[in-house]
Amino acid sequence: MSFTIEAADKQTQARAGIFKTAHGIFHTPAFMPVATKGTVKTVSVEELETMGTEVIIANALHLHIRPGEDHLARTGGLHKFMCWNKPIFTDSGGFQIIRKNFNIRITDSGLNFKDFISGAHRLYTPELCMEVQKAIGSDIAMLLDDCPRHDAKKRKLVEAIERTIGWAKRGIEHGRGLGIPHIFVIVQGGTELDLRQWCAEALQNFKPDGYAIGGLSIGESKEAMMKILELSVPHLPQEKPRYLMGVGSSKELLNAIALGIDIFDSAFPTQLARHGTLFSSSGRYNLKGLAGKKENVPLDENCDCEVCVKYSRAYIHHLLKEKEMLGMRLASIHNLYFILNLVRKARSAILNGTFNSFKKEMEERLA
Amino acid sequence: MSFTIEAADKQTQARAGIFKTAHGIFHTPAFMPVATKGTVKTVSVEELETMGTEVIIANALHLHIRPGEDHLARTGGLHKFMCWNKPIFTDSGGFQIIRKNFNIRITDSGLNFKDFISGAHRLYTPELCMEVQKAIGSDIAMLLDDCPRHDAKKRKLVEAIERTIGWAKRGIEHGRGLGIPHIFVIVQGGTELDLRQWCAEALQNFKPDGYAIGGLSIGESKEAMMKILELSVPHLPQEKPRYLMGVGSSKELLNAIALGIDIFDSAFPTQLARHGTLFSSSGRYNLKGLAGKKENVPLDENCDCEVCVKYSRAYIHHLLKEKEMLGMRLASIHNLYFILNLVRKARSAILNGTFNSFKKEMEERLA
Repeated sequence: MSFTIEAADKQTQARAGIFKTAHGIFHTPAFMPVATKGTVKTVSVEELETMGTEVIIANALHLHIRPGEDHLARTGGLHKFMCWNKPIFTDSGGFQIIRKNFNIRITDSGLNFKDFISGAHRLYTPELCMEVQKAIGSDIAMLLDDCPRHDAKKRKLVEAIERTIGWAKRGIEHGRGLGIPHIFVIVQGGTELDLRQWCAEALQNFKPDGYAIGGLSIGESKEAMMKILELSVPHLPQEKPRYLMGVGSSKELLNAIALGIDIFDSAFPTQLARHGTLFSSSGRYNLKGLAGKKENVPLDENCDCEVCVKYSRAYIHHLLKEKEMLGMRLASIHNLYFILNLVRKARSAILNGTFNSFKKEMEERLA
Repeated sequence: MSFTIEAADKQTQARAGIFKTAHGIFHTPAFMPVATKGTVKTVSVEELETMGTEVIIANALHLHIRPGEDHLARTGGLHKFMCWNKPIFTDSGGFQIIRKNFNIRITDSGLNFKDFISGAHRLYTPELCMEVQKAIGSDIAMLLDDCPRHDAKKRKLVEAIERTIGWAKRGIEHGRGLGIPHIFVIVQGGTELDLRQWCAEALQNFKPDGYAIGGLSIGESKEAMMKILELSVPHLPQEKPRYLMGVGSSKELLNAIALGIDIFDSAFPTQLARHGTLFSSSGRYNLKGLAGKKENVPLDENCDCEVCVKYSRAYIHHLLKEKEMLGMRLASIHNLYFILNLVRKARSAILNGTFNSFKKEMEERLA
């Protein structure tokens, strides 16, 4: 078994675990910085290591388009390409269905779209999706899913689930044949409990190595998201890892950990950072408009990240105002560290049996 | 004396020296990465240190506008602001006269312009220029100069020299009173030998700590630049450091070192890098169009910079294509290292008495 649960919280559904891969282990709850195209925006792999990152996630569809799986296969995969020796997850590309720039048309065969670089027509099938992730050398691959928009009607949600199940069957057979080390299914179903339950149960038949929860945090209300999570997570097998896709704010992370989620990813911390919004132990703030933005203090006085021990808020404010890349980089390092550290503290609290009080304390402080 | 000449080449005018400041020494010939607004674009101070940077240059006029000298004086100067503990040069702002975005009108009082951030009218005098550099905590300040365009008529060049001399008198008196550690004059005169000679001799009366050569590498031909350098450098005092402003390509650096130049600065290596043009031991190339751009080899197989020992050309090509900031950063680190290393090798060659053959070998290789 790759995934071992070390401790389960008594007052909540939170658990602490370890996931083993050929590129080393990572501890759960885990937060994954997003390296869509083979780099976490503005940040180097050394900086990721310094902040204690154990696992990152890249995107198979993006890497399929550029640099292409042939290139990655020939040169030794993504780990070698980007010089990252720790575990790599890859998302399948199903999420890109709701991204306008891809302009994807779905058929039962797969995703049809025009390559926005070469202009060529492309068909991205569940099988090809696995081949790409094999070439990438992904430690944990996602099966291709059909991700409907958050406001999709029930008929559309049903259709997406049927397709996701059909694609999962084709994908996992192909992926197992290719020898991909770990394959996760992606559960769809919007905010409808019966659909989530049906999708989760159907996908269990394929004996995946883990369960990603897709189609959330894509425009529905946070209350609706937390509600469906609370109701649907119990329908996932206890012993398998659960990965909530696209969630990266402090409050939702803590709430989702309490509901039994093990793994997270989100571009949110780095996106915010590039626009000058910083995480801090007393809540989020935008540096550009902050009173005291020119003070000779760190971004967060309680933070020990490599940025806060060295640089002042005044300097980073200056860099952001001048649109200097170093500003976006320092802000990104701080925000990523903040979230990674929050998740590490949550893990310690689960192991110590103090998760619930830790969560309450954090919620008050970060409110 | 802050500046000591350790060795003079026998076949050329090249010399090797040491310059002492309160923030440590730097060796000459020296190349200074450009940190106009308090950061070398895309690069951190740790990265500058790793590549062996001994001295950088910032811009007084830019820092006057933002974050402002009051802020820098209050918080301990630029060294502390940007976390750089080694020597800092500051250019005065005279060069910005030929930059259209500043839209500067010159009077004998100083530079008149509209602050493009606040919209306020500003008068930047030779005295204020020194006050700004004092607040910055500059180790080596430049006097305000009147820098005419490369195609200026002789009458305009004469007027600019007269103003530069008048401003130098006002500036150096004020700067000495403020206790600025080292003050350099800037010699103007376009490509006219009689004017360069007149300006250099007039500025010697102020007993500056060094001589910057301004008004070159601003649009005139390279031949015209090298010719006027060859003829005018002998009119500068032997014992004082000579700083050629704005030159940063391999060939011109080597030629200018041979003519007795000690110090250089240029944004050229980082500008080129951001557009995908890389320096290498067999000449310059643009990575985007290169055959073999996707090869699993370093940017330069003979380079031992922190980028070349780790990352492939294929990865950096991918990052530049995807407009990922990490690509511009890795390319900038490599280009800066390449130039710093070339200048370090030139220095060793001067000390070993082999500069002329080193120069010839480099010129053949880099052609």
